Amino acid sequence: MGIVVVGTVAFDTVETPFGKGEDVLGGSATYFSTSASFFTDVSLVAVVGEDFPEEHVSFLRSREIDTDGLVRIPGKTFHWTGRYGYDLNEAQTLDTQLNVLMEFRPDLPPRYRETEVLFLANIDPELQLEVLDQVKSPKLVACDTMNFWISSKPAALKEVLRRVDIVIINEGEARQFTGEANLVKAARQIMALGCKRLVIKRGEYGVLMFAGDSIFAAPAYPLESVFDPTGAGDTFAGGFMGYLANTGDFTEDGMRQAIVFGSVMASFNVEDFSLDRLKSLTYPEIEERFRHFRALTRFQGLAADGQDV
Amino acid sequence: MGIVVVGTVAFDTVETPFGKGEDVLGGSATYFSTSASFFTDVSLVAVVGEDFPEEHVSFLRSREIDTDGLVRIPGKTFHWTGRYGYDLNEAQTLDTQLNVLMEFRPDLPPRYRETEVLFLANIDPELQLEVLDQVKSPKLVACDTMNFWISSKPAALKEVLRRVDIVIINEGEARQFTGEANLVKAARQIMALGCKRLVIKRGEYGVLMFAGDSIFAAPAYPLESVFDPTGAGDTFAGGFMGYLANTGDFTEDGMRQAIVFGSVMASFNVEDFSLDRLKSLTYPEIEERFRHFRALTRFQGLAADGQDV
Repeated sequence: MGIVVVGTVAFDTVETPFGKGEDVLGGSATYFSTSASFFTDVSLVAVVGEDFPEEHVSFLRSREIDTDGLVRIPGKTFHWTGRYGYDLNEAQTLDTQLNVLMEFRPDLPPRYRETEVLFLANIDPELQLEVLDQVKSPKLVACDTMNFWISSKPAALKEVLRRVDIVIINEGEARQFTGEANLVKAARQIMALGCKRLVIKRGEYGVLMFAGDSIFAAPAYPLESVFDPTGAGDTFAGGFMGYLANTGDFTEDGMRQAIVFGSVMASFNVEDFSLDRLKSLTYPEIEERFRHFRALTRFQGLAADGQDV
Repeated sequence: MGIVVVGTVAFDTVETPFGKGEDVLGGSATYFSTSASFFTDVSLVAVVGEDFPEEHVSFLRSREIDTDGLVRIPGKTFHWTGRYGYDLNEAQTLDTQLNVLMEFRPDLPPRYRETEVLFLANIDPELQLEVLDQVKSPKLVACDTMNFWISSKPAALKEVLRRVDIVIINEGEARQFTGEANLVKAARQIMALGCKRLVIKRGEYGVLMFAGDSIFAAPAYPLESVFDPTGAGDTFAGGFMGYLANTGDFTEDGMRQAIVFGSVMASFNVEDFSLDRLKSLTYPEIEERFRHFRALTRFQGLAADGQDV
């Protein structure tokens, strides 16, 4: 199965204690689609302005991403400026220039509407709903969101959460959304809105995935060098959804493997600025880190449980 | 093998958003030895004052803990007062009355000095060194410490770290001790001081264990009800070291299983105030949660790797 992603393509200006990237390629859909492209065919829906260089579009095409849904309109491309401190856990947003994003109304090319897998990256939940209305009969839909929409458009956001299969959200946002400090309780409350599966991203602490009574905990891959966390969440989602679209295995086991592939992709992305590490990444490296991930988390069962190692 | 623990026995006054415990049983050695007693024979070295009730000593004996090393001297028992906010991650210390702890000079009963496994709970590193001088030829020694000693007695602490096999430390303390924000780098720096194995506790995010080039990541067990995190770290250490003393298996596999048993014990302890949950706990419950822990973390390997599931 291929996958359609709707989100942002942007310029980022990012400062971390290890360096600065000015007007570099960014945006939720950019990270997502590049990451997912290692696993499956990706079609991208987003908007850019007249200032968006052809070189970036060429890069996306080099990853065999279908860019027919990437529209260019008069004005400037969305621009985010942020800074990270030494702990690298939370970005401080210094400036947000929405620019062409303010006029974005996603209009999916006809063949995109047939997609079986859809990812609604972090954009206005009202736009996410418009996209949901355009796709015909997707087998798997996931969405991301952020604190800004939780406070400004809670009703539309709740409607999105009701209509998707998987919600991907940050730990802090899960707590903010529910007003509940205990994460297990917060997860139950979000799932009570209608989604069957909830993935909570915890930055350097990894991921928790909730479905029914099942919980899966995956650590983040411990790295000695983290240069730029920008896009880690979208890169994670791209690996997760891309792997699912590739296998078509939406069982609990399949979902868990996909979580680990997502975590692997995110761990590469933070090793360099912008999408630089993803640009040089190869599939054998991904599989090698997946195996390291298993070595990182494995432990033996109880002797009484037999060959349960 | 049995285990000897040196640390504090205390009264705690603890307030959390869910209730308050006044002058309840606490202390690093109390939590450690109670937790370890589910796995092995424990001998306790600590000091209490004249106000320490016989009922608490009886409880420790009911767990078959050897209390011959628990000395009673004139004065009042060590008393800690703290408070937790809704996130329950960090205690705010409101008051510390060292009392009899100020005169504590550990003097191990002769048979304690033969111990094969030793745990130095969080006390003055100079006292930890005195204890190390008294034990004859231990096979496994671990220590805990805290930020207070990192800033006040760094030289003695470094000497302790050089002489033990396993160092157990909080994430924030590892960062403070090294002045390094990246946890993998901080771990390498601490291990360069001489210890072969380092366990970093991350509260609700679980544990990272470093040894040579190996890293093991264990999540914390996700709980819907956390009432009182007091003693979680010592309860973790008690399960970890108690299980190791029981099996005598100090291989990487054995250490990983022990980390999970420690995490299981900590997850029970936070479910109620003081040691109340440990008082009602049974071994079948421990094994059941260990199995849940495996269900929480398991994922399948790559198909190409064969039966690597």
